[in-house]
Amino acid sequence: MSVLTLPRPYLLFLGDVTDLSYAKTAAGLRDWVPGQCVAEWSLPGNPLRLGLPVMAPAEAARAGARSLVIGAATMGGAIRPAWIPALVEALEAGLDLISGMHMPLASVPELKTTAERLGRQLIDVRRPPAGLPLATGRKRTGKRLLTVGTDCALGKKYTALALTRAFEQAGVNATFRATGQTGILIAGGGIPMDAVVSDFLAGAAEVLSPDAPDDHWDIIEGQGSLAHPCYAGVSLGLLHGSQPDVLVVCHEAGRKRVIGLDTHYPLPSIEDVIEINLLHARRVNPEARVAGISLNTSKLSDEEARRAIETEARRTGLPCADPIRGGAAFEALVDGCLQAEAALAQ
Amino acid sequence: MSVLTLPRPYLLFLGDVTDLSYAKTAAGLRDWVPGQCVAEWSLPGNPLRLGLPVMAPAEAARAGARSLVIGAATMGGAIRPAWIPALVEALEAGLDLISGMHMPLASVPELKTTAERLGRQLIDVRRPPAGLPLATGRKRTGKRLLTVGTDCALGKKYTALALTRAFEQAGVNATFRATGQTGILIAGGGIPMDAVVSDFLAGAAEVLSPDAPDDHWDIIEGQGSLAHPCYAGVSLGLLHGSQPDVLVVCHEAGRKRVIGLDTHYPLPSIEDVIEINLLHARRVNPEARVAGISLNTSKLSDEEARRAIETEARRTGLPCADPIRGGAAFEALVDGCLQAEAALAQ
Repeated sequence: MSVLTLPRPYLLFLGDVTDLSYAKTAAGLRDWVPGQCVAEWSLPGNPLRLGLPVMAPAEAARAGARSLVIGAATMGGAIRPAWIPALVEALEAGLDLISGMHMPLASVPELKTTAERLGRQLIDVRRPPAGLPLATGRKRTGKRLLTVGTDCALGKKYTALALTRAFEQAGVNATFRATGQTGILIAGGGIPMDAVVSDFLAGAAEVLSPDAPDDHWDIIEGQGSLAHPCYAGVSLGLLHGSQPDVLVVCHEAGRKRVIGLDTHYPLPSIEDVIEINLLHARRVNPEARVAGISLNTSKLSDEEARRAIETEARRTGLPCADPIRGGAAFEALVDGCLQAEAALAQ
Repeated sequence: MSVLTLPRPYLLFLGDVTDLSYAKTAAGLRDWVPGQCVAEWSLPGNPLRLGLPVMAPAEAARAGARSLVIGAATMGGAIRPAWIPALVEALEAGLDLISGMHMPLASVPELKTTAERLGRQLIDVRRPPAGLPLATGRKRTGKRLLTVGTDCALGKKYTALALTRAFEQAGVNATFRATGQTGILIAGGGIPMDAVVSDFLAGAAEVLSPDAPDDHWDIIEGQGSLAHPCYAGVSLGLLHGSQPDVLVVCHEAGRKRVIGLDTHYPLPSIEDVIEINLLHARRVNPEARVAGISLNTSKLSDEEARRAIETEARRTGLPCADPIRGGAAFEALVDGCLQAEAALAQ
């Protein structure tokens, strides 16, 4: 097996994190897969609540939970010593542990020995599965959509999730394919593309999105950007291996420079990002096309957002929407994706 | 330290391999760095010779050798059981072991325990160094040339080595920067790019080619091809992190399809490869330019080769040469590289 598959449903663990902004993983799971979240649990005295039933591991296990997810984050990605007795308690209650932190679970001796003694799994979703193959370049059956971006961290995962939900609501058979740790927790599986050895990047993307029925869509979470001077290799391996039929370009309204770098790199235009993505996508799928723009307008007022969305739609001639705002514009984007592929099939 | 540095000079080990085509690593070292090859050694009865002095490990160590390089290859990249006593003998004689095979040296129990007992190094050049950083995108000092290709396995390493030698002969300060295992053995160091975790690809390329004096050239061995459906991610990370001033496009005359794949992918044209490489290279270095074409004509007669080289030069308007054939065409390619950068500096 070359794709992670997580034991679900989850018990969401918040530890001693009292600020919701450090519990985004847990909140994302509650929002996107409430049916997979049996309960929440935190250390004694922590007032933070997600609105789920509060259960200790033994009770959660009786209610059907199969794993505890560390749903809180720390600066530097470390597992805090104060959490360890609680994590051991979860193992003893019969739950596997799942972490998206940088620090591997097995690097904590108490967790390693307890898990070995009890036969539980310690699952680090940042770690890629073993045995990934080299890419073959073979065309696979089924339809594929990939979200790509003008930069990192501007909504590629959210867009893919929102499109998957909208496709399902429209009666279309669709699967969200996760390529980063939060997406993997939401999907219950996937491959953390940025942790894959580079020779196997495209091969990993092929494995992530296997042959499927002709009317099935894989909606693949994009990573990085072909225009990002640090992570473009990941984006290109994912693009080639995904062989998408349809691309949706994600952008944040008003973002002018690449984030996270001391050196100034201006953001490329949406048109430039369309051009270079199609150039590479058509190498592996000559029919690939861009169906629309997903515009992150979270920093704009409602009125500014409406204008920004209309402006981009007019300028590019493509459907444009902010999936978080939804509405008619988002319905048009969803239709655009479905029609782009239908046009292709004729 | 984030770049491999190999203990040299070498004793070249041929094992029981009797066919020179399976001893290409050793032959390449003899050809490119004869001054780093103290001697050759093989198992008793093996008639294969490279033309170096024949020495057992103890004698080679007395003659200055610091490591034994496994210079022979096997199908599947395994270390053959028949070689192990000889490799143990080398460790006991004071030599470190260096391997470019897939199978890690330390996976052989006798080698692991002997090396640990004696404090010797077991160096797998396919394994990237630890602690590679994320890329910064910062512009570095010094000049950089990167060889890129229309496909894999058509002369990017050879071209970079030949250009480095020609630059040095022209009195230009140049360093060959190796990105694959054979290149690393020749250079005595480098980073095996295709084994780097993909998030760190561009960062590894930055480390490989650090700040240098303004008149110094790094001649960087390219990997894969932006047009290769399986390995383009490696090529793009290397391109972005290298920030080359000058690109040389490598192609094999007559190659029509991507090698190594069951699925048919036509080879891109040289013009398409120029376009896509410049599009990406100019993202990190707006002055990047293609200085010429390196044409592998090994399957052609002398007359066919001359015509093919002239045709490509006329068609592209760029210097074109086969570095293995050398001659005036190759001198023109070398001049083209030096002039491209000089034009840029004005």
